[in-house]
Amino acid sequence: MHTLTTPSLALPTDLLTRYQHIRQWSEKLCQPLQTEDYVVQPVAFVSPPKWNLAHVSWFFETFVLKPNLPGYQEFNPDFGFFFNSYYESVGQRTLRAHRGNMSRPTTEEVYAYRHYIDSQMLKLLGETTLEAQALAVVELGIQHEQQHQELLLTDLKYILAHNPLFPVYQAGGAAWASAPPTLPAANFLEVGEGLYQMGYKGQDFCFDNEKGVHRVFLPAFRIADRLVSNAEYLEFMAEGGYHDFRHWLSAGWNWVQENKIASPLYWHQQEGEWYQYTLAGLQKVEPQAPVTHISLYEADAYAAWRGKRLPTEFEWEAACQQFNPVVPEAACFLENETYAPRPESRPALFYGNVWQWTNSAYLPYPHYQKAPGALGEYNGKFMMNQMVLRGGSCITPRSHIRATYRNFFHPEERWQFTGIRLAEYC
Amino acid sequence: MHTLTTPSLALPTDLLTRYQHIRQWSEKLCQPLQTEDYVVQPVAFVSPPKWNLAHVSWFFETFVLKPNLPGYQEFNPDFGFFFNSYYESVGQRTLRAHRGNMSRPTTEEVYAYRHYIDSQMLKLLGETTLEAQALAVVELGIQHEQQHQELLLTDLKYILAHNPLFPVYQAGGAAWASAPPTLPAANFLEVGEGLYQMGYKGQDFCFDNEKGVHRVFLPAFRIADRLVSNAEYLEFMAEGGYHDFRHWLSAGWNWVQENKIASPLYWHQQEGEWYQYTLAGLQKVEPQAPVTHISLYEADAYAAWRGKRLPTEFEWEAACQQFNPVVPEAACFLENETYAPRPESRPALFYGNVWQWTNSAYLPYPHYQKAPGALGEYNGKFMMNQMVLRGGSCITPRSHIRATYRNFFHPEERWQFTGIRLAEYC
Amino acid sequence: MHTLTTPSLALPTDLLTRYQHIRQWSEKLCQPLQTEDYVVQPVAFVSPPKWNLAHVSWFFETFVLKPNLPGYQEFNPDFGFFFNSYYESVGQRTLRAHRGNMSRPTTEEVYAYRHYIDSQMLKLLGETTLEAQALAVVELGIQHEQQHQELLLTDLKYILAHNPLFPVYQAGGAAWASAPPTLPAANFLEVGEGLYQMGYKGQDFCFDNEKGVHRVFLPAFRIADRLVSNAEYLEFMAEGGYHDFRHWLSAGWNWVQENKIASPLYWHQQEGEWYQYTLAGLQKVEPQAPVTHISLYEADAYAAWRGKRLPTEFEWEAACQQFNPVVPEAACFLENETYAPRPESRPALFYGNVWQWTNSAYLPYPHYQKAPGALGEYNGKFMMNQMVLRGGSCITPRSHIRATYRNFFHPEERWQFTGIRLAEYC
Amino acid sequence: MHTLTTPSLALPTDLLTRYQHIRQWSEKLCQPLQTEDYVVQPVAFVSPPKWNLAHVSWFFETFVLKPNLPGYQEFNPDFGFFFNSYYESVGQRTLRAHRGNMSRPTTEEVYAYRHYIDSQMLKLLGETTLEAQALAVVELGIQHEQQHQELLLTDLKYILAHNPLFPVYQAGGAAWASAPPTLPAANFLEVGEGLYQMGYKGQDFCFDNEKGVHRVFLPAFRIADRLVSNAEYLEFMAEGGYHDFRHWLSAGWNWVQENKIASPLYWHQQEGEWYQYTLAGLQKVEPQAPVTHISLYEADAYAAWRGKRLPTEFEWEAACQQFNPVVPEAACFLENETYAPRPESRPALFYGNVWQWTNSAYLPYPHYQKAPGALGEYNGKFMMNQMVLRGGSCITPRSHIRATYRNFFHPEERWQFTGIRLAEYC
Repeated sequence: MHTLTTPSLALPTDLLTRYQHIRQWSEKLCQPLQTEDYVVQPVAFVSPPKWNLAHVSWFFETFVLKPNLPGYQEFNPDFGFFFNSYYESVGQRTLRAHRGNMSRPTTEEVYAYRHYIDSQMLKLLGETTLEAQALAVVELGIQHEQQHQELLLTDLKYILAHNPLFPVYQAGGAAWASAPPTLPAANFLEVGEGLYQMGYKGQDFCFDNEKGVHRVFLPAFRIADRLVSNAEYLEFMAEGGYHDFRHWLSAGWNWVQENKIASPLYWHQQEGEWYQYTLAGLQKVEPQAPVTHISLYEADAYAAWRGKRLPTEFEWEAACQQFNPVVPEAACFLENETYAPRPESRPALFYGNVWQWTNSAYLPYPHYQKAPGALGEYNGKFMMNQMVLRGGSCITPRSHIRATYRNFFHPEERWQFTGIRLAEYC
Repeated sequence: MHTLTTPSLALPTDLLTRYQHIRQWSEKLCQPLQTEDYVVQPVAFVSPPKWNLAHVSWFFETFVLKPNLPGYQEFNPDFGFFFNSYYESVGQRTLRAHRGNMSRPTTEEVYAYRHYIDSQMLKLLGETTLEAQALAVVELGIQHEQQHQELLLTDLKYILAHNPLFPVYQAGGAAWASAPPTLPAANFLEVGEGLYQMGYKGQDFCFDNEKGVHRVFLPAFRIADRLVSNAEYLEFMAEGGYHDFRHWLSAGWNWVQENKIASPLYWHQQEGEWYQYTLAGLQKVEPQAPVTHISLYEADAYAAWRGKRLPTEFEWEAACQQFNPVVPEAACFLENETYAPRPESRPALFYGNVWQWTNSAYLPYPHYQKAPGALGEYNGKFMMNQMVLRGGSCITPRSHIRATYRNFFHPEERWQFTGIRLAEYC
Repeated sequence: MHTLTTPSLALPTDLLTRYQHIRQWSEKLCQPLQTEDYVVQPVAFVSPPKWNLAHVSWFFETFVLKPNLPGYQEFNPDFGFFFNSYYESVGQRTLRAHRGNMSRPTTEEVYAYRHYIDSQMLKLLGETTLEAQALAVVELGIQHEQQHQELLLTDLKYILAHNPLFPVYQAGGAAWASAPPTLPAANFLEVGEGLYQMGYKGQDFCFDNEKGVHRVFLPAFRIADRLVSNAEYLEFMAEGGYHDFRHWLSAGWNWVQENKIASPLYWHQQEGEWYQYTLAGLQKVEPQAPVTHISLYEADAYAAWRGKRLPTEFEWEAACQQFNPVVPEAACFLENETYAPRPESRPALFYGNVWQWTNSAYLPYPHYQKAPGALGEYNGKFMMNQMVLRGGSCITPRSHIRATYRNFFHPEERWQFTGIRLAEYC
Repeated sequence: MHTLTTPSLALPTDLLTRYQHIRQWSEKLCQPLQTEDYVVQPVAFVSPPKWNLAHVSWFFETFVLKPNLPGYQEFNPDFGFFFNSYYESVGQRTLRAHRGNMSRPTTEEVYAYRHYIDSQMLKLLGETTLEAQALAVVELGIQHEQQHQELLLTDLKYILAHNPLFPVYQAGGAAWASAPPTLPAANFLEVGEGLYQMGYKGQDFCFDNEKGVHRVFLPAFRIADRLVSNAEYLEFMAEGGYHDFRHWLSAGWNWVQENKIASPLYWHQQEGEWYQYTLAGLQKVEPQAPVTHISLYEADAYAAWRGKRLPTEFEWEAACQQFNPVVPEAACFLENETYAPRPESRPALFYGNVWQWTNSAYLPYPHYQKAPGALGEYNGKFMMNQMVLRGGSCITPRSHIRATYRNFFHPEERWQFTGIRLAEYC
């Protein structure tokens, strides 16, 4: 949760513009969908698109409109039950795995819900004066909706990828048609031993898990100036990487065996050639593009096989401070609308394309404090059994990312755009 | 599978009329649905409505059009994979539990598929002369679609009943508003000891599992002249029926314990009052109406508690020969459009309202023969671990039922309209 | 449960002799065991041998000694919890799957328990005069212990067979060393159409599920004069029987796929040769011996592949009445101490060697009545989802079997000595 | 794995004496067992005692005797399959969950195996001169056997605790009979901000996961001078700690709900009083003794409820450097033979009694290197999804523990003697 006194926060009118802009992006992302695509949930960790669209609206209704807009009338009192994600404080909710069993409310009703919320938010932000704390929650709601834009696309990709028709979300040319035939070998950039400051110290929005600026001592290390490519990952596969336990963590090896894993998610081999499902349909694996949709176990095994390792989240942040003090323009994010990682256009680009697994467990920073009340459930309660990812992906909104941003998933999860940057000690 | 030489089969033009009539009924039953209702599959044994609509069309395409219509072009070669149910002979298919993960083909595409099949069937039945064997498969396809009309409604009921909004399929008055305040006690009708002929011996359509007329010796018995009512079943519940192992089969008692069963499916207790979800929404349990949506385990436990038993399928058929030699007009079927069982309007009505569990395992009759080829998979391979039900329900098409009709489900299944008729030995 | 007034029951002294004889057999069967063999339970349906030994004693303690021996002191009040099998009426009990987790009571304590029970039974049977009903329960206890002798050996076989050392229970020569090199083809014996009397009508002990003499009408049929041999079953395997869905019931085919079944239980292929674990260790499959340790699904698929079928339990009993009016001396039972089926020594031997799957569901006979009280749980509550087997096996005590004896297991179970006798209609 | 060149390692004769001493302790710990206790495995993570006894011998056979003793003859070539734990490099092995299904080799054979290994080790250590690297592996084998002494007791406790008879391992008075009636409140000892050196830097044995001395920057913090007691934990329970999601990590809350957790492992409530199973049988919960057999989730929830937190492993090690520069004599270890934690006899005792959960994930130290070959599987491959524990418990051998020792378990595991020491930031 973000800071509750943020003096430099944009004025309400600016906030309103940003609110409307972000809300429109969510709907724009759904334009290619058929009504049926909004409904299904092939696996518990994937939510139906209509659930994502409604849940972000429920967030504004519950945490902004109900406490702040006098006389606010709920759109439908049942919706809390449907669209609460995990806030125990806010009452009962649909079991996560049952979201895809709910044909009602319909997609049309969900859009009506969104537009009702938008009209009420317009009233709130346009006609009333909010306290800083309430403004902060609006900001959190906007950031939250941006997070769900990313989830909406990864969930949708999972849905369409598991349909034997391999439907196309956005047709058309891969942006990398003119990629050079071979990538130069990665360089390993050196970062010296020392005490580094970690965590967010700016004045703008950040999540509570980034707060608590603190020092971390790092020994000297080197970090790759680019992501691992598909071509490099195919070498690992060709040399039997998935069949040699020596490269794997014990839990990873069990996962490979039990799930018969032999390639990244969404890869299919047809007549000796590797294809991957993308939001542009089934396409040949592009050798120059970064490998993606891999678990931490695969990232770690790949690194072990190369005689390298994954960086820690602190090494990544220190390297970023040195080599990418601002987010480079060249980085590939949601707004590029490629919806797939593309070959890197320049070296030492630490952002975008794919989230980078680190070998850091997702744990609290010193002096970490949960917010009081339901919003205290936003981040802190997930700090166990997950690993940190850094850098953002090709479907992360550009305004959403920064050097201190800590994403986190379980080590076996693959449906996000995840990838590998290698490191080693000096 | 029905007999392959059926001289009295209606002429092609009549068959065409019946074909069109049945096909239209399927679509009529879907008129109250929202697009989203067509998609979901809350549990493996329930199919999405769009799957049901497409599967019956695939049956005509695969078993009628492809072998008989010269130059027939498949609507979409991928559809076989999606819409094959269980015919191993006809190739690979979607795993049953994954039907609800498929947003594509869309409902609109499924309707286009239906209409394409209809146009081709019109050409086939209107313009060509079919051999008796091909006509028999058309007839089987019609009967098959009637079976799926019943499944479509039971599946839809399961889908809507598991939505917390309890959506209404068909609003409006329960047909039994004028039911008498109390039912007279059931009479037990006597049937004498003797050899009875079982199985279908007419000239019209029947399924292969009814064929093989044979004699069965029955000791004298008595059978109730009406179904067990909700009021009677509530007595069983009130006396702790669900909590006393002595009434239950061992497998039934395990099922009750593991699933915490304490009432029929779709029943909810609110402030001391019992409600049940019906296709008209959540309604008070009607005491006079037959109890329904119960497993064989519940039926058997109820009977044991009453000091009675379930009839065998042969006793039921013998009683029917004696008391209902033709299907009575008063029986409640799909065409009554009540979509719920209603209090019985007269005694000794052996048909309609709810399927009656028998204590007969679903096993082959003497001289049973599977049809050759894929249609041999229609019935025979399911003859294990299932129990026979007789009589048809309030959503069975009237023209589909007869005294020899053998329905079958596993003893724990409850989403069909299932009920109880008691019996005892003399 | 047997009849409660059995005038011809042996006098107490005779009963005592039989009691002692049977009890000694149970212990004799355990002589080859190591202490550790008494403890383990590799799968829920297998009980540790020490559990079997104690449970049969608990039966005498609970149903005979406590109600009938004045001043009887329980050996240990905790033992009821450990050694009750499934009698809900008699209180709480160890979960079946946890029997193998109990290192205490030790084997030595279990033997002490047995000997205490024996001393008390000696007092009861030797010094008191029992009512007919109590005598009947003693008889039931003896029959019950005989059933558990068979279970003890099948459970032990399962335990040892799953140990990579393949320990030997009883070493030494297969009894069939001199079997002829090839078996003559089976003859199919004809049994005429007619009404047959089924069920037990003698004066001696029988189980409640055999009672209720009743008539069954059978069409004419033929039944094989011998069991299916391993050589014949190997033909089925060689012709791809396990890989062709057309031979299989739907539930059977799912079972084959999910469990990757490709041979009878306990078979291992080494360098192209088939071996089977026997109580004499791992041995080559003997072609002439009856195939055993197969599920009903395999029996049914084999029959379908041969163009035959399994008999019903009534056909088997009618054939027995005709061809084996008394149990032949040549039949192979427990007392032969082969502990494995052997090639049949003469044709038309309907008993012994392996239990024969029938295509009859285990359901009550007309007028079936459960006994009152806990012993009413002996049989009746299991009458669902199981199939009947007839004839007894090489480890069934000879005095335990008769023409009307109905054994029953679930169709997928294989750890009993189960086999195949074919039938067909005339 | 320890360093491969350890010049100060004891001479072979000393090593032999230590070898024999440790080996005898393992057998001494088993003296109270019945043969049956050696066999059972109530849950996959618990190994049968005979497996533990044999596995540590297999370790010496595989990694010491086979490579180093010329002409060494394996005791039994099958034993590798039985007694390999997780070394993929060393070939196939029994599935972990099946260890308890193996009645053979018997306990007697396992002891014969041990004594054979001992005789061969005597020959090796007494008669040959080993290279430093081989000596290091002997040392590792000794340390490994000490680890398994602790596991043997925790596994045995789990086995006996799940037996309704609650068998006594070692009878007799709790050592804390004279504990003071109330404990003074814990003091929080302050440790200043700064760079601390972590990891093992001595000359003696340590595990590979402790190597790599490195600096860690710590903010100032306070750490409790004693463990959380049962009395304090009972307050948490009394105030509904197990029923209030706000104290719990999300994964912890799911674990509580799914497993219906409402007290530490081995606790039973009888007539309002709490009892716990101990190796001395079922006893009243001693209020002054440290709470034990809790998961990290419980430890974390307790700390959150108190407004404190768990220390990191680095904070623990820094505090230990300051307050317990050597392991205090007063600490309670295996050699005290209490087999249960006892009330702390003095403040600021960081060692013994119960392992202390830290909020540090088990991850590699900088420059961590796995050993080459099979022994590289000793530690490194487990560095995922586990949390670090520090300090040793009442059943840890005293010579086995040190400030840098990193134990690790999954956050839900409770069968080790685990407990809580609180911390907070200054």
